[in-house]
Amino acid sequence: MKLLALDTSTEYLSLALLLDGKVISRGLLAGQTHSQRILPLLRELLDEAGVELNDLDGIAFGAGPGSFTGLRIGCGVAQGLAFGADLPVLGVSTLLALAEDVPGADKVVACLDARMSEVYHAAYEKTATGCWEEVVAPGLYAPTDVPMIPGTGWTAAGSGWRAYGAALDQIYAEQVNNRLPDVFPQAAAIARLALPSFMVGRGRPASEAAPIYIRNKVAMTIREREARTASQ
Amino acid sequence: MKLLALDTSTEYLSLALLLDGKVISRGLLAGQTHSQRILPLLRELLDEAGVELNDLDGIAFGAGPGSFTGLRIGCGVAQGLAFGADLPVLGVSTLLALAEDVPGADKVVACLDARMSEVYHAAYEKTATGCWEEVVAPGLYAPTDVPMIPGTGWTAAGSGWRAYGAALDQIYAEQVNNRLPDVFPQAAAIARLALPSFMVGRGRPASEAAPIYIRNKVAMTIREREARTASQ
Repeated sequence: MKLLALDTSTEYLSLALLLDGKVISRGLLAGQTHSQRILPLLRELLDEAGVELNDLDGIAFGAGPGSFTGLRIGCGVAQGLAFGADLPVLGVSTLLALAEDVPGADKVVACLDARMSEVYHAAYEKTATGCWEEVVAPGLYAPTDVPMIPGTGWTAAGSGWRAYGAALDQIYAEQVNNRLPDVFPQAAAIARLALPSFMVGRGRPASEAAPIYIRNKVAMTIREREARTASQ
Repeated sequence: MKLLALDTSTEYLSLALLLDGKVISRGLLAGQTHSQRILPLLRELLDEAGVELNDLDGIAFGAGPGSFTGLRIGCGVAQGLAFGADLPVLGVSTLLALAEDVPGADKVVACLDARMSEVYHAAYEKTATGCWEEVVAPGLYAPTDVPMIPGTGWTAAGSGWRAYGAALDQIYAEQVNNRLPDVFPQAAAIARLALPSFMVGRGRPASEAAPIYIRNKVAMTIREREARTASQ
């Protein structure tokens, strides 16, 4: 099975091809230039692998939570690419991708800096069968107000720990024994996470691809509604 | 020459194929469902025309100004579609598309409802050679503060006139003799406007496609910067 995966949910831009078990990937700190950087990087990646979109079996993308603009770019590009090559699409949680990013870890508390003094947060534990189980569901919190996690031996991953490490340590100090604040959601992890679903035919039509916003969707919808009401 | 055009800048979703002079188009009021509706509608359009993306010579999209989310969807999908089929891309002003939408008009003052009690505004006049000239450049204004336009015989087009017709009439009453508040930017107009540029090889690589925000880009950038600074 051959998959393309992409993530544009943070300042890091990540692309990967999973080709019958082998992974080739590209990544760079794109800041706010994802829209300009993603297609040339994809061209490089396909050329290196010697494959074209039509050779693939599906496209996975980091669906969020993350930057509103980044998620829209990633979802839109994934949709356009998938349409032309008639490929199924799957969105994968960026927080779960952080967990999958950490080699050897089986208990990961993932935090992404959500700006405005908040973090996107979730906790995952790997079961005996090697699958990730959601211990704490994805949510948006003030760093001083993140939910409890059970027991010890946790790995902390993601930019939330870089931005709010001190506040998070107040809560989790005894429970976390490994901190990886500079890990970004990686397309290679997204490809690995999506693979089992694609293998059993659970890829979706490109038209159904949608970002997971948690906060921004609500904020934008409310703002747009207010503006609309005020203008009528 | 064969072009696909799409516009997702307003609540109206519009697609068109310009096939050697013939235009086939589709449109619907998509509200906030552009992301789900655009690809099935594109499939319909291509099937009706009996063409595929690989048969085309370029993709034009409504680049804005307009809804921030809508512009990101349109640009992202256009980029993805163009990449797979290796097509050049061109962004076209949605305000100019409004002018081009009005059959027979040669002086058009275009206003799109920008929410938050503002309008996107521009004025265009058709020259003797049939080209549109920018009389007033695109800008964002309070409806009571739009810039002067010269002379009389203007057609007013776009949702700005539906939302703020009374305020705009205070300023333009003597100058406007035709009001079309329910005209949306149409993909067929975008295709016609882009055609001459594509014909002389001015289509751009998909990676260079970018929305025109006027307001939202500035607002978002400032907000993100503030949040980033606050978090560091």
